Amino acid sequence: MAFHTVGICLKPDQPQLAGSVRELEKWLRERGLEVLLGREAAAVTGAPGMMRSELAEKADLVIVLGGDGTLLAVARAIGERPVPILGVNLGTLGFLAEISRDELYPTLDQMLGGRFRTEERTRLAVSVERRGEPGPRYLALNDAVLARTALSRMVDLETLADGFPVATYHADGLILATPTGSTAYSLSAGGPLLLPGLAALVLTPICPHTLTQRPLVLPQSCVVEVRVRDARGGEVQLTCDGQVGCELLEGDRVIIRRTEQPVLFLVPSDRNRFDVMRAKLRWGER
Amino acid sequence: MAFHTVGICLKPDQPQLAGSVRELEKWLRERGLEVLLGREAAAVTGAPGMMRSELAEKADLVIVLGGDGTLLAVARAIGERPVPILGVNLGTLGFLAEISRDELYPTLDQMLGGRFRTEERTRLAVSVERRGEPGPRYLALNDAVLARTALSRMVDLETLADGFPVATYHADGLILATPTGSTAYSLSAGGPLLLPGLAALVLTPICPHTLTQRPLVLPQSCVVEVRVRDARGGEVQLTCDGQVGCELLEGDRVIIRRTEQPVLFLVPSDRNRFDVMRAKLRWGER
Amino acid sequence: MAFHTVGICLKPDQPQLAGSVRELEKWLRERGLEVLLGREAAAVTGAPGMMRSELAEKADLVIVLGGDGTLLAVARAIGERPVPILGVNLGTLGFLAEISRDELYPTLDQMLGGRFRTEERTRLAVSVERRGEPGPRYLALNDAVLARTALSRMVDLETLADGFPVATYHADGLILATPTGSTAYSLSAGGPLLLPGLAALVLTPICPHTLTQRPLVLPQSCVVEVRVRDARGGEVQLTCDGQVGCELLEGDRVIIRRTEQPVLFLVPSDRNRFDVMRAKLRWGER
Amino acid sequence: MAFHTVGICLKPDQPQLAGSVRELEKWLRERGLEVLLGREAAAVTGAPGMMRSELAEKADLVIVLGGDGTLLAVARAIGERPVPILGVNLGTLGFLAEISRDELYPTLDQMLGGRFRTEERTRLAVSVERRGEPGPRYLALNDAVLARTALSRMVDLETLADGFPVATYHADGLILATPTGSTAYSLSAGGPLLLPGLAALVLTPICPHTLTQRPLVLPQSCVVEVRVRDARGGEVQLTCDGQVGCELLEGDRVIIRRTEQPVLFLVPSDRNRFDVMRAKLRWGER
Repeated sequence: MAFHTVGICLKPDQPQLAGSVRELEKWLRERGLEVLLGREAAAVTGAPGMMRSELAEKADLVIVLGGDGTLLAVARAIGERPVPILGVNLGTLGFLAEISRDELYPTLDQMLGGRFRTEERTRLAVSVERRGEPGPRYLALNDAVLARTALSRMVDLETLADGFPVATYHADGLILATPTGSTAYSLSAGGPLLLPGLAALVLTPICPHTLTQRPLVLPQSCVVEVRVRDARGGEVQLTCDGQVGCELLEGDRVIIRRTEQPVLFLVPSDRNRFDVMRAKLRWGER
Repeated sequence: MAFHTVGICLKPDQPQLAGSVRELEKWLRERGLEVLLGREAAAVTGAPGMMRSELAEKADLVIVLGGDGTLLAVARAIGERPVPILGVNLGTLGFLAEISRDELYPTLDQMLGGRFRTEERTRLAVSVERRGEPGPRYLALNDAVLARTALSRMVDLETLADGFPVATYHADGLILATPTGSTAYSLSAGGPLLLPGLAALVLTPICPHTLTQRPLVLPQSCVVEVRVRDARGGEVQLTCDGQVGCELLEGDRVIIRRTEQPVLFLVPSDRNRFDVMRAKLRWGER
Repeated sequence: MAFHTVGICLKPDQPQLAGSVRELEKWLRERGLEVLLGREAAAVTGAPGMMRSELAEKADLVIVLGGDGTLLAVARAIGERPVPILGVNLGTLGFLAEISRDELYPTLDQMLGGRFRTEERTRLAVSVERRGEPGPRYLALNDAVLARTALSRMVDLETLADGFPVATYHADGLILATPTGSTAYSLSAGGPLLLPGLAALVLTPICPHTLTQRPLVLPQSCVVEVRVRDARGGEVQLTCDGQVGCELLEGDRVIIRRTEQPVLFLVPSDRNRFDVMRAKLRWGER
Repeated sequence: MAFHTVGICLKPDQPQLAGSVRELEKWLRERGLEVLLGREAAAVTGAPGMMRSELAEKADLVIVLGGDGTLLAVARAIGERPVPILGVNLGTLGFLAEISRDELYPTLDQMLGGRFRTEERTRLAVSVERRGEPGPRYLALNDAVLARTALSRMVDLETLADGFPVATYHADGLILATPTGSTAYSLSAGGPLLLPGLAALVLTPICPHTLTQRPLVLPQSCVVEVRVRDARGGEVQLTCDGQVGCELLEGDRVIIRRTEQPVLFLVPSDRNRFDVMRAKLRWGER
């Protein structure tokens, strides 16, 4: 795979990064690559930019300058287009944006020379059904979360996997996470780590009333359905990647299945997942 | 301690309990006791009733017919008056309302004969301060909970104990529970069990981002202050006993200390706390 | 798949089951099936029996009368032979031996009529290497556990997956569990539930000193290697399925990979895994 | 409280610390203090030394150079003598030996000037009873642990508090920890943090089979009795502070109560417990 057209996406409102964007643009052009700027990147340099979805149509590599949050947003904007993403971290080391600023140019050098791997990351398609009618649809790279909004009370969430009843969770909420999302909210809620690339999803209840309702790892082919059974007068919120979502009513059904096209991450060929985990989770230190 | 005046409080909207209330009233009067009915109890029998707070002024024993929720509400209504409560469970065994319907009359017989213990249960006084001005105040027998309401994002809660900084919790929320409340929400959030009567409180973070922020047990004399540092544009809800509370803004301070007067529970003298725990938590079964 | 020859294996030392074994034998013969008895089953009826491994060569179905422990032992004895097992529980409901005594004959009726599924259960081959020399080898259907034997001290276990360093666990020990074993010891140690049939293994540290070392779910194709780095003068025990194993020395390497041939479980076609989990873990009760 | 005689205790086998010991000795003598050396300290300087217990009789302050392990050993050697300990950490920051090498002389300066607090740390007296006869006795500043030694099987530990049955734990073992010990093994086993000075103990089961058997916080006045009910042919080990202990047989009873005289820690007056927790547990980092 050789790269011809590289898109640059930026975290919004980062005027102080104008220099970094121009430098990266110049570096790429000097190597014969065409460069496209997303709107946020264009905004800081004054150049013409395009929407992320449009950029994803034309680029064969998207470099994301930002943190994990920016990368999640770009991944959703790219949607089902099979264009790989390279995440460059501008702040502290991320689980997703794993290239540090200092590593950017040496890594790009390697990658243009063909020394990289493309990792396939499972992504979720989340759709809501109300009274039998289809409602909003979302994509999620990390997780889909159903949770009550008034935290004093619990919600009852009836859950099925491939049509089989799993359990009715009487809890603060429920997280369905991909391996990528297993290091995010699910981990805080007591979920296990899933190696990226594992063909599995994890269903993690949030503060379940029943102490034996532990996180459950399912095949990634599972179609998970969650029905809002009883919200005790309060509201239930559906949130995808902690960024987009909607309110749910009693009786609503949320159907979650993986997308055909996974998200593609470009990673240096000498890096493995355990290195990132060890660094981020500070294994080796108490 | 001999009893002269017994109040009866009922869970609201229980018309089917009219017979039970009348029977209890009759049983008590036959033994020379004066009986006062709370409004909810009076409503189902058609007799005159009084507010729970008024009842608490005049009674030297309050019998609560309902579940743990009703008992929590009555305990708040009684406020700082030193009148003991006897909780009678009408549904499944509760942690608080621990006398079953079948045990009611044998237990009352014992108690009128002096065979009972009065358990002191620590209670919290929770007060909100906004821009230096005092705001709402609440009582809590189980717990005070600060939690974000839009569950997709975290809240930063700076916490001090007796003025010393404990930690800034980057989490879904924070629970300060009494020993009584340690079997409620705090347990679902991963907190330990505290023996009732223990002179301690437990501070349990809800889904903390930092995995080493574990539940922390503090002396009950501690004055705990929680400052809402960053709500990321969302809202933070203060909830006491899962029943009352208010919304908080960034910058608000919540100050929690135990009340001088504990809640008083009347318990059969042959019952101990471990029996209730074992039964409720099904120890001995997986 | 039609059955011709059925083996019966029994938990050792169950003379009171002589009648049950004879009854089952008779029932099967009446339906034209040949019956073979394992030694433990033969011992109680006085009939000639054979070793479990020999029985596995000749039978095309093995019925195990006992609990989960007996079933684990029979599965190891069967080894890599592709003969399906039907576990009948004589005591309390098991995760593995999921047919109760009352269900035995109706279930067999169904199964002889072709109404059953064969579930493939991942199994581990565990081999020890000492100073470069191959040592003992074991099979495990539930888990392989490395743990210190003198519980006052920790052990350092360096762990690799497919040759990549995962972490050095400073802990009481380490469990590598199959989906089948995820409901056993790993669950007690804080591990997640894995749906049987999931192509994954879970690596669960036992009381790790580093609180961020959480259970890690790996592809079942992973070859996991654990090196005993520092046993602090004590001993490290390798145990497979809680039943067989050996002592390890500092420097020993344990290599764990799944076997080519999974264990085959015969299950009624109307039963699914979630039913068993819900019943065993008492979901729906606190 | 003015100090006259200072004892110096050292971690064994630290010849490289001869200079540090001599320097500390000189520094103290120059300020008019008498200095006594424990054997380990004397061994590296060639001076005459004395046993730690003897030293504790004569000193009114004991400085411990080492880590948490050395401090635990010195605390046991001091026994019930009311002499305060100052722990100086020679390696990484400890929970107990909280003065770093660099802070040693500034801290001593402060303390000799009277700016210090004496913290009382609850300590356990652990005694074994076999067939009604008293057996070995131990002191423990961190914890008393009963655990099976052959890790493939569980042990049944019947536990009573003040004579009341708490639970029979079917587990790897059981930890009874002081607030001081709540940051040690109990934390790894899932226990809460207890603020030092809290009048409480925590009973933490190790990998309990029953998932609802959560850590239980008890009043420090509780006399806890653990009876070894069933060791399934294996052995049960009693270990105090991870350093001393004995093997137990089925039927043995272990009785644990706090000692009258707590361990005394000398701490700088400007230091509080939360600071140490935050630093050691890396709160503020993920």
